[in-house]
Amino acid sequence: MTTPAANPPQADTPFSFTLLGQDGQARRGRLRCGHGAIETPVFMPVGTVGSVKAVTFEQVWATGSRLILGNTYHLYLRPGHELIARRGGLHRFQGWDGALLTDSAGFQVFSLSDLNRITEDGVEFRSHLDGSRHFFSPELSMEIQLALGSDIVMAFDQCAPYGADPREVVRAVERTTRWLKRCRDAFGGDDDGASAPGRTRAGGWERVLFGIMQGGVDEQLRRRSAREIVELDLPGYAVGGLSVGEPTTAMREMTDLAAGLLPRDKPRYLMGVGFPDDILAGVAAGIDMFDCVLPTRMARTGTVLTRDGRLVVKNQEYAEDERPLDAECGCPVCARHTRAYVRHLFQAKEMLGPTLATIHNLHFYQELMAGIRASLEEGRFAAFAAMATERWQQGEAARLDGVRRRNP
Amino acid sequence: MTTPAANPPQADTPFSFTLLGQDGQARRGRLRCGHGAIETPVFMPVGTVGSVKAVTFEQVWATGSRLILGNTYHLYLRPGHELIARRGGLHRFQGWDGALLTDSAGFQVFSLSDLNRITEDGVEFRSHLDGSRHFFSPELSMEIQLALGSDIVMAFDQCAPYGADPREVVRAVERTTRWLKRCRDAFGGDDDGASAPGRTRAGGWERVLFGIMQGGVDEQLRRRSAREIVELDLPGYAVGGLSVGEPTTAMREMTDLAAGLLPRDKPRYLMGVGFPDDILAGVAAGIDMFDCVLPTRMARTGTVLTRDGRLVVKNQEYAEDERPLDAECGCPVCARHTRAYVRHLFQAKEMLGPTLATIHNLHFYQELMAGIRASLEEGRFAAFAAMATERWQQGEAARLDGVRRRNP
Repeated sequence: MTTPAANPPQADTPFSFTLLGQDGQARRGRLRCGHGAIETPVFMPVGTVGSVKAVTFEQVWATGSRLILGNTYHLYLRPGHELIARRGGLHRFQGWDGALLTDSAGFQVFSLSDLNRITEDGVEFRSHLDGSRHFFSPELSMEIQLALGSDIVMAFDQCAPYGADPREVVRAVERTTRWLKRCRDAFGGDDDGASAPGRTRAGGWERVLFGIMQGGVDEQLRRRSAREIVELDLPGYAVGGLSVGEPTTAMREMTDLAAGLLPRDKPRYLMGVGFPDDILAGVAAGIDMFDCVLPTRMARTGTVLTRDGRLVVKNQEYAEDERPLDAECGCPVCARHTRAYVRHLFQAKEMLGPTLATIHNLHFYQELMAGIRASLEEGRFAAFAAMATERWQQGEAARLDGVRRRNP
Repeated sequence: MTTPAANPPQADTPFSFTLLGQDGQARRGRLRCGHGAIETPVFMPVGTVGSVKAVTFEQVWATGSRLILGNTYHLYLRPGHELIARRGGLHRFQGWDGALLTDSAGFQVFSLSDLNRITEDGVEFRSHLDGSRHFFSPELSMEIQLALGSDIVMAFDQCAPYGADPREVVRAVERTTRWLKRCRDAFGGDDDGASAPGRTRAGGWERVLFGIMQGGVDEQLRRRSAREIVELDLPGYAVGGLSVGEPTTAMREMTDLAAGLLPRDKPRYLMGVGFPDDILAGVAAGIDMFDCVLPTRMARTGTVLTRDGRLVVKNQEYAEDERPLDAECGCPVCARHTRAYVRHLFQAKEMLGPTLATIHNLHFYQELMAGIRASLEEGRFAAFAAMATERWQQGEAARLDGVRRRNP
């Protein structure tokens, strides 16, 4: 009996990042890896537990997504990385032909778990599913991510919450650096034994390790964290510890600073960000990669994205609205369905409501990124970003104004 | 702003049924209507409240479905037929380009509603959603279905439950005939005033009225009901009041009898049936149309259909099963995904589980119907039905045997 499988990986393609052009600090680039080429700046949809919630992988692919994120914490708990490894790895297990990045589980064990205890060795925590005890270390995070087979593996870092004691932020930076070295050592090297830090071909295609910068909203700590992790010469770097509750202005300042501290010839990934205006600001700062649960999570509760801000389509006011979700959107939902219909689906609790909203929202993000890339190629990013940001923020302001008027 | 819309109806195509061939009592035919041609025998997926649960209409279309069923009762309650009419009718509201049949709400007001009171005028009932009082009559059922714009409109009938007092079954037959005449009168006629019972072009395409036979499991009552409804010379007829709890042998006997009592040149629809072996038996009896919630409802609880019976894919035993859901299935789920993956999705309560199972199950039914049609064209239906029935029933027997062994 034949086994359904993802496209065979292009095993001979090493991971690479090519900077194709620059417009101000903003960068147009291309990632290559064993599971295809990815145009940057790129937005990665989040596929938490082996699926991008509410949609098929064909539908994800059709939005233009070519790189998605898998959550190590969730997959470790259910169905378990060993089962996925026995089934040929996460690409094949879930039937996704594109590229995969996995997070390290660090963010989840610090934020999702009810209880956790941090030591130099790692983090002890209880599962949010059944309360069972587990222990994560840098080494285990690498073992799990290598078992999952993701193209890009994220380092196991410590993220201090916003507003934490400054000494805790310092400790998190120091520990993140020490843990990164342990990640690199546990990650292994090329089969030929060549010294290529953060690169391994285990399993038939190259996987690479990205380091993560911490430092909260402290400029000096950001500089220190950047210096320490860049020294390890890894294939890519992420900015962690932002979008965790700090004010938007602080996030923007830190993004500007952080992007400039990372090597020019390597991809830069701003973790967990964000709304369209946050992404535009990130690109302006020189960020190449983004991920966020916003488009998928908001979709499931009946909120869709438009060029003019969020639209809470489940609301009564759209009950007879003949317009598509976003008049300028090229997605199949906007081509076929009205706001009135999508609103009805949420009212009637039909699963198709979350599905259509998710398809639209993911498409919306991919159209945003395509627009960003086109504007970069044509040297008009600043104007594009200014206009898109203004429309988004004006729409959001009008929406909030309406909410306030209805709930004085 | 342009409005997304279904393909414009082929308004000039009148409803017709062509008998293309016969093999024993089994029939190969073709329905034509304003929303396309439908090859028979046909299976109609159920689109209860404006969506076929858990899938997009593109996915329904891709299974080969060209005629789906909408539930008048549910759509009347939410979002309301008047809203749907204002939005251009049900085809356009839900974005379905194919043909539509709506039921009359009769079955639901008798079975779903907590309280109902039946008079000669109609049925008073309480909504299963909020307990509000409503009154359905033959005239209102026609008004709602004409507002929805379905290509095939079902008569408002009275279905006596299995095991009912024989006098109640007689009363239901008599009332069904009287109500059918009221449905015909309320349905209207062609715009040109020609006398074409059960045909109207209101709204731009022809809609037709199907009568429904009742009579429980009583041969004489079935003959009487058939005689009375056939006299009205409607464009099609359905067999109602089966698959409501009676033993399978009784259902099969009554189907054989009932199909033979209906006109040869008109489509015959067996309502609410059923499992693959029931459908094969229905085709053998001379039935052309089927609908059933089985494939969609079972899918949502983690049961998929295979040529060898049901497979409860959410069970632990499939946790590492590399095989597709059904080895002989040509659906995109079986091409891409394993039982292990689909099982994981149900374990993790990911919406993609019900979605993939629904795509597979609908595809399974359409493949069954395509196999039936091909065997009819080649004059080998009896052999096809015998083999498919034997495999299905042997698989089901083995499954039940396993269940009994595990739960002695």
